[in-house]
Amino acid sequence: MLDFTKNFRFADKRPDVPIIESALDTDFYEDTMGQVLHRRCPKVPIKMAFTNRTKSVRLADHIDIGELKEQLDHVRDNVRFTNSDLHFLRGTNEYGDRMFGEDYLTHLKNFRFPDYHLEYRAGQIELEFSGDADLAYRWEMPPLAIISQLYNRSLMKNLSRFGQECVYAEGQKRLAEKIALAKKYPGMTFTDFGTRRRFSRQWHEYVVSTLSEELPRTQFRGTSNTYLAMKLGLEPMGTNAHKMPMIYSALYYDQDSLEPGYSQRKMLEHWWEQYGVGLSIFLPDTYGSDFFLRVLDPLMAMKWKGFRHDSGDPFAFGEKIIKYYESLGINSQEKLIVFSDGLDIPACIRLYEHFAGRIGVTFGIGTNLSNDLGLKNLSIVIKAVMADGHPLVKLSDNLEKAIGNPYEISRWQRLAGYGETFSEACRY
Amino acid sequence: MLDFTKNFRFADKRPDVPIIESALDTDFYEDTMGQVLHRRCPKVPIKMAFTNRTKSVRLADHIDIGELKEQLDHVRDNVRFTNSDLHFLRGTNEYGDRMFGEDYLTHLKNFRFPDYHLEYRAGQIELEFSGDADLAYRWEMPPLAIISQLYNRSLMKNLSRFGQECVYAEGQKRLAEKIALAKKYPGMTFTDFGTRRRFSRQWHEYVVSTLSEELPRTQFRGTSNTYLAMKLGLEPMGTNAHKMPMIYSALYYDQDSLEPGYSQRKMLEHWWEQYGVGLSIFLPDTYGSDFFLRVLDPLMAMKWKGFRHDSGDPFAFGEKIIKYYESLGINSQEKLIVFSDGLDIPACIRLYEHFAGRIGVTFGIGTNLSNDLGLKNLSIVIKAVMADGHPLVKLSDNLEKAIGNPYEISRWQRLAGYGETFSEACRY
Repeated sequence: MLDFTKNFRFADKRPDVPIIESALDTDFYEDTMGQVLHRRCPKVPIKMAFTNRTKSVRLADHIDIGELKEQLDHVRDNVRFTNSDLHFLRGTNEYGDRMFGEDYLTHLKNFRFPDYHLEYRAGQIELEFSGDADLAYRWEMPPLAIISQLYNRSLMKNLSRFGQECVYAEGQKRLAEKIALAKKYPGMTFTDFGTRRRFSRQWHEYVVSTLSEELPRTQFRGTSNTYLAMKLGLEPMGTNAHKMPMIYSALYYDQDSLEPGYSQRKMLEHWWEQYGVGLSIFLPDTYGSDFFLRVLDPLMAMKWKGFRHDSGDPFAFGEKIIKYYESLGINSQEKLIVFSDGLDIPACIRLYEHFAGRIGVTFGIGTNLSNDLGLKNLSIVIKAVMADGHPLVKLSDNLEKAIGNPYEISRWQRLAGYGETFSEACRY
Repeated sequence: MLDFTKNFRFADKRPDVPIIESALDTDFYEDTMGQVLHRRCPKVPIKMAFTNRTKSVRLADHIDIGELKEQLDHVRDNVRFTNSDLHFLRGTNEYGDRMFGEDYLTHLKNFRFPDYHLEYRAGQIELEFSGDADLAYRWEMPPLAIISQLYNRSLMKNLSRFGQECVYAEGQKRLAEKIALAKKYPGMTFTDFGTRRRFSRQWHEYVVSTLSEELPRTQFRGTSNTYLAMKLGLEPMGTNAHKMPMIYSALYYDQDSLEPGYSQRKMLEHWWEQYGVGLSIFLPDTYGSDFFLRVLDPLMAMKWKGFRHDSGDPFAFGEKIIKYYESLGINSQEKLIVFSDGLDIPACIRLYEHFAGRIGVTFGIGTNLSNDLGLKNLSIVIKAVMADGHPLVKLSDNLEKAIGNPYEISRWQRLAGYGETFSEACRY
């Protein structure tokens, strides 16, 4: 029987220790996206905003605003890229040789998080970050991980010491079940994507290090958290996120042409020019995957490795992608889908078995790895909401995940032909 | 009042934890020398051997052979370069862009320490390492750090708990005095060179992290320990060691020509071709500095940054180097001497004040930083003793530090014209 109170791997007993202590304690795609933003639109003003989708939880009742401020201040004032962080990034060659240029590494060396705006309103947290695109974009994972950890601390405070130990024991039991189940399907490969909504930094590290010890590297492929990858000698994993196409939509969208596909192709071109095949995974659902497939250059579809699925029915999505590849005469067996939408191990296994032999599949698992100890989970996000003065929208393949003001959402639905074709496309 | 028994930074209370856990827990020059050895003489058989110069200490009475074996076995069987270690090295650009090639990084990825030979004889440790030059050469810092730490453990075991705490308190007091003294001479810059004879791994990290917090980076320039540099975000420092010219003397020395300078120039050429100006510090004392200066190509002296001093009178050495530069019409103010022979802070200050304005100086401090807690220090070394079947010799500028069998030492004295010119040269 472990004494959790003495085990610093588990316990979150020292609120004086900052939650975010490393500039790399974030998703690797922040490092990769940052380079493209820095080179292509460094001075474009953007705004990022926090949203708690779990409206039933009044976060203001759980998290002291002074404590939240202290944690955010620490990130803004103290979190910097160290010399070793830059060594690690400069030495990253898993996705192509010398993927980070010296101009970008110098930018990171001087990187400072811009200021933030925080207030509590109607029981919820209002939190916004404005600044240059290549600075403010990075205010995503650190605040989410901070809010998630402070919220979980508030839940733990209500429990006795024994009650807290039981929470960790439940987390261990669930982790053991996941490992045992995964071992039965060695071809089902997955990656930790759990930074943003993790129970705590300590628990996240415990989970990732345990998975890397208990499962072969051919099955547990690594983590999206750059700091943990560095600390544990794992491969940093990740491609890109919705804020890239969203920011591009404001910069390259011509109000007159009514051709929103232009901005999306532009972003893909810039991405390819930067990283080539190494990071060539499409994230198609920003304005609906049907729109994306309509505007996608088929030559690009041939060259890129595959797609990431992040919303809507994953089975329907996979069938749609296979059919899309077939329509172009591309052998889908040589392509890949990275599923990453709210997965757990059983869901991964169902998808793996459904698609095995027809298209390559791998999985990114988030909250269910890093925050599955039996306590209530939050669904919190930070999204880009403005760029260069234009309001931004994300529709996704599930309108419940849509982000943006209602007028802009319906305008984008029209522009992307969302309503008309989507339901039909879903019938696969 | 600190409770040292609970402070894992100090206490060495867990003998079940291996002393060496990282392949980078060594001097950075091992990483740089390794590349030249790997590219120039990968399959040459060499032998490294341990010597305890402190004959009055019978190490066999202090260190259990089973415990020593266990620690060495751990290095041989388990210490490997991790993915992150390779990222760090690949990302090292302080001495020139992309200083480590992929061929060498692949070699390190597959690196295994070769086997060792250990026995106890006449109260001393006999420890030898045979194998290919680019493998066996690395058996230097890990065994020295292990023997040093096991010896110190044996001294600490004789003390009560309070007695042990007093040892750490003495170490802290001395460290505080060093810091206070160094602060008075901000132009006196220095680097930690203390891996090989450190009190313990934990204390070494404590000293280096404290120095990096208490002194500006412009004064405390970093550490020769690659792992600590990585962990603490410092600059890894180092150039090359005697085993390079010694191994080269066996490979490039023509028995008939009686021209031992050939091998030494060859080594310098290979080093320059590999690293250029970044790591261009001569270590001239292998066969006496006078010999070295006689055979050195003056064009090389112009291009290289300067010299490291590692034996003999440092003041005389510095004067000799300044005179040497003057004789070639080189402005010595643009050149550098790295002093590294048994220094403490007061000695550094004396040298700094003596040479200020005449030649650049900086300092590498070893045992006096990493093992100065009031306990008895050992003078232990591991040196290359054979290469390609030839016995090796190091004379140094102080014959008490000479390594090799007496016949070979006197033969090299003749070849290098050591006796004749040295005493005279020392008169400066």
